[in-house]
Amino acid sequence: MADYKITLLKGDGIGPEIVNQAVKVLDCAAEKFGFGVTYDEALLGGCAIDATGVPLPDETVAKCKASDSVLLGAVGGPKWDSQPGNNRPEAGLLGIRGALGLFANLRPSVIFGPLKSASPIKDEIIGGNLDVMIVRELTGGIYFGERGRKEVNGQPAAWDTEMYTVGEVERIARVAFDLAMKRNKKLTSVDKANVLESSRLWRETVKRVAEDYPEVELNHMYVDNCAMQLVRNPRQFDVILTSNIFGDILSDEASMIAGSIGMLASASLSGSKLGLYEPIHGSAPDIAGQNIANPLATILSVAMMLRYSLDQSEAADAIEAAVAKVLETYRTPDIYEEGFTKVGCDEMGDRVCEAL
Amino acid sequence: MADYKITLLKGDGIGPEIVNQAVKVLDCAAEKFGFGVTYDEALLGGCAIDATGVPLPDETVAKCKASDSVLLGAVGGPKWDSQPGNNRPEAGLLGIRGALGLFANLRPSVIFGPLKSASPIKDEIIGGNLDVMIVRELTGGIYFGERGRKEVNGQPAAWDTEMYTVGEVERIARVAFDLAMKRNKKLTSVDKANVLESSRLWRETVKRVAEDYPEVELNHMYVDNCAMQLVRNPRQFDVILTSNIFGDILSDEASMIAGSIGMLASASLSGSKLGLYEPIHGSAPDIAGQNIANPLATILSVAMMLRYSLDQSEAADAIEAAVAKVLETYRTPDIYEEGFTKVGCDEMGDRVCEAL
Ligand SMILES: CC(C)[C@H](C(=O)O)[C@@H](O)C(=O)O
Ligand SMILES: CC(C)[C@H](C(=O)O)[C@@H](O)C(=O)O
Repeated sequence: MADYKITLLKGDGIGPEIVNQAVKVLDCAAEKFGFGVTYDEALLGGCAIDATGVPLPDETVAKCKASDSVLLGAVGGPKWDSQPGNNRPEAGLLGIRGALGLFANLRPSVIFGPLKSASPIKDEIIGGNLDVMIVRELTGGIYFGERGRKEVNGQPAAWDTEMYTVGEVERIARVAFDLAMKRNKKLTSVDKANVLESSRLWRETVKRVAEDYPEVELNHMYVDNCAMQLVRNPRQFDVILTSNIFGDILSDEASMIAGSIGMLASASLSGSKLGLYEPIHGSAPDIAGQNIANPLATILSVAMMLRYSLDQSEAADAIEAAVAKVLETYRTPDIYEEGFTKVGCDEMGDRVCEAL
Repeated sequence: MADYKITLLKGDGIGPEIVNQAVKVLDCAAEKFGFGVTYDEALLGGCAIDATGVPLPDETVAKCKASDSVLLGAVGGPKWDSQPGNNRPEAGLLGIRGALGLFANLRPSVIFGPLKSASPIKDEIIGGNLDVMIVRELTGGIYFGERGRKEVNGQPAAWDTEMYTVGEVERIARVAFDLAMKRNKKLTSVDKANVLESSRLWRETVKRVAEDYPEVELNHMYVDNCAMQLVRNPRQFDVILTSNIFGDILSDEASMIAGSIGMLASASLSGSKLGLYEPIHGSAPDIAGQNIANPLATILSVAMMLRYSLDQSEAADAIEAAVAKVLETYRTPDIYEEGFTKVGCDEMGDRVCEAL
């Protein structure tokens, strides 16, 4: 029987309570599909600053590296806002991405059937249906380039470097093309090649990789146009491939277009099977500890983990189906509508286990 | 009597026809409000490449510099797609921004009363009403930073530099604060200060400039969050201040949220009264020369010119009112709805003159 070692990075705010529910569901899935899971916890973000002085202790990196996969709740909160930039909870997040080589961030923007009216976009455009996968490069570009301060014409100035090597673009492009092959074979690569040299290299490289995927229909779009098109007609997209900074912006825009931020999961993948899975929403310190947070995005992150890191795609499908089923009756406050039964974080976890 | 010298850069595609209508309206306004206008034409973009080999001939820069203001139609088209990057129509656009020092790009995202159903966003969110002004820095940042190719670990790589000096941030911040003072005294400065050094300098500098504008309520927002919030609740914004690249993305997103791209104007301002005014839409080569293009964005660009460069705000108000009035009855094909009278580009210009 397969036995997986999972590192839990519960993090801050609602992090611990949503991760606890996701663990509950993973345990149910393990029992049902006949595999084992053992957990280890480690510190990341604000809780790590409080306990050790830094947002990403070495021990956390070591534990994550020694595991089959990592489940993250959420990090950050006003408590740590006065920390210097390089010692804030977010720095821990960037640090763990770099340390584990998590170069591929997969962000599905989907609308779940029962939540089809959640999108801010008009029904005649969205038609209750959206399934876009954004593939964001996560360990390169301006996030990890050199930066600093200097004097320019006697004035203080600050600079950052957007940089990509061919190899970095190639490997993220392959992830996107592979995904497109499993989906609708349509890939939109987003860049700003009319201005940026790094985008011109990006575009050339994506075109070259495309030769290995003759079945995939590839098109290139400028980032400004993509930001428009996501609002105008988001259903034109299947897989979107883009850089770290453009992916940061476009994936958040696309999430909001799907409507229920509390429902969206994400995967950050490395060259090996090791991945980090987390909800896209934040740590919501204002509602922490009240048992009202929505654990579904974290539960759906577990489904992604089963699919992409643990090769248990049947269990992944089952969890996603269970979530869809539960949504027909039960809702946490953030997605509550009249006619449904309002439940807390705990009970939502129980209901998903039941439906499994 | 004031007499203004205007350089017309008609450009490509529908550029000439929409500029002709805007000139017609400007002439009417001149007569009505008692000022004179003389025009000179110059080449920019594809038409300049065809005639001179380059997208921005020196003569064009000289003519623009010698005038009180510049009106631009649109540049670009598939015909010039095979030009090398630095000789494409867009390069002419970036070139003229740099040559005239047009550091402040003002992009209003507004919904005109009679077009209130045009937004892709649900009515309960947008309520037929939107009036956001995006102030984008236009001659700095990654658009004008150093860039190039190099080898990194034996691999080809490409890089671009995002750079801002305190002076560059200060002057664009002042434009935004001044505008906020004339509007609802609310300013959102958008950056990525949790990652970028240039954003940290940006934020510090904006905070310092804010001390001179105690009445303006300032808040800071990360660019990813702003991309979300524009979809979730665009009416929370009054003036948005941001960098060149973030402004490129967010202003296009905001335009689409307003709905009718064919209606939106923009102003690019320098330290002096000289400004460049243009519709935000493109050159639409597919409909060029058919007398069906919508000239209203260009006509509204003339209104912005009258307000920001020529100190004729009464004439500006009158043109905007005339456009609103005309929309109650007449529509070009792009904004046509049942119950209205369909008109071509020419006739739309005539109707606005009449309403003036
Ligand atoms: C917290 C921040 C540094 C991070 C990013 O920009 O990558 C976040 O916005 C994300 O998208 O995961
Ligand atoms: C054509 C392009 C270079 C330009 C830009 O990115 O600035 C355009 O998108 C704009 O916003 O005016």
